[in-house]
Amino acid sequence: MRNCRIVTISREFGSGGRFIGEQAAKALGIPFYDKEIIEKVMQETGFAKETIEGIGEYAPSKSSWAYAFVGRGQDGFSVIDTIYSAQHGIIDKLAKKSACVIVGRNADAVLSDRDDCLHVFIQGNMDDKIERICRLYDKTPNEAHKLIKDTDKKRAVNYQYCTGRKWGARENYDLILNSSSLGYDICIDFIIKSVTQKNKV
Amino acid sequence: MRNCRIVTISREFGSGGRFIGEQAAKALGIPFYDKEIIEKVMQETGFAKETIEGIGEYAPSKSSWAYAFVGRGQDGFSVIDTIYSAQHGIIDKLAKKSACVIVGRNADAVLSDRDDCLHVFIQGNMDDKIERICRLYDKTPNEAHKLIKDTDKKRAVNYQYCTGRKWGARENYDLILNSSSLGYDICIDFIIKSVTQKNKV
Repeated sequence: MRNCRIVTISREFGSGGRFIGEQAAKALGIPFYDKEIIEKVMQETGFAKETIEGIGEYAPSKSSWAYAFVGRGQDGFSVIDTIYSAQHGIIDKLAKKSACVIVGRNADAVLSDRDDCLHVFIQGNMDDKIERICRLYDKTPNEAHKLIKDTDKKRAVNYQYCTGRKWGARENYDLILNSSSLGYDICIDFIIKSVTQKNKV
Repeated sequence: MRNCRIVTISREFGSGGRFIGEQAAKALGIPFYDKEIIEKVMQETGFAKETIEGIGEYAPSKSSWAYAFVGRGQDGFSVIDTIYSAQHGIIDKLAKKSACVIVGRNADAVLSDRDDCLHVFIQGNMDDKIERICRLYDKTPNEAHKLIKDTDKKRAVNYQYCTGRKWGARENYDLILNSSSLGYDICIDFIIKSVTQKNKV
């Protein structure tokens, strides 16, 4: 990796990866992209927020599965291909524009050919992820457990379909951190240090 | 993880994991165990160094495959089971004795029930691993590539046989570092920080 400009964060649901990425971006003084990408895809494709949110990072739900693959936009492409292609282009443009932190949206795969990225994966222990999801989304532990399993499964299916790679495979990352055992502060610190130390050389 | 006393290092062949672990142990002022474990298994089982070296961490070579599984020691156990059991006991004892860094020998799995361990995996890009192996073992790039693939495959088979877990699966580790993209110094630094920061709390 030459000088590092872009940080991509992939994460297990409930591991605090979004929060960790946001804090690292703040400390590095660079933009943080997550939901902003959805807004941009909306503007570009005309699809509703919920459609993009669902399809841009998750496998479509059962009710929208057929629509995602079979439904056609004006250009004749399937909905999932149209959204993924727009999302791909937007992530490419953001990475060219300035240093930034991008969470989710398969950004690690989209930007895998660049040599100025730090690809990070945040994972956590199930008990801690359940506790976090219960607290943030007002769920019972059983509901949280199911939501975590379902969300990560959808992310994995979407990632596989759109990128041809295996979601969370360690060889795709420069840095994999368990936020349960290390704590959020160390995770934030290691991302910052990985970027700043590389850029010092 | 409560206070961290033990660091286990698993690593891809050629990634510099042994060197990184040794430097981290030196900086932390704690013992570093690698080949010492082989010596202890020799004393305990009476098997030759080469047999233990091969079987304690690698799948047996084709010529010794049958011997490893079928050959019996005085107690009627197969060679691989006798060596693994002795190695397991020695690692357990070392971990109880004092803080330390242990490289390889499936130590992450042996000590997976303890809550005072930091489990680290070091990986690297193939080009860098080839370059390192050529330099250290006087090999051609083709020979080095084959040796890396073979060694990691043997480690994976041994790990699977002895522990029932998948070698290198990210969920088994607190910290996975790519030494090619991060550099050895950052890897050493992150291991030291993970231990010292946890022990400050």
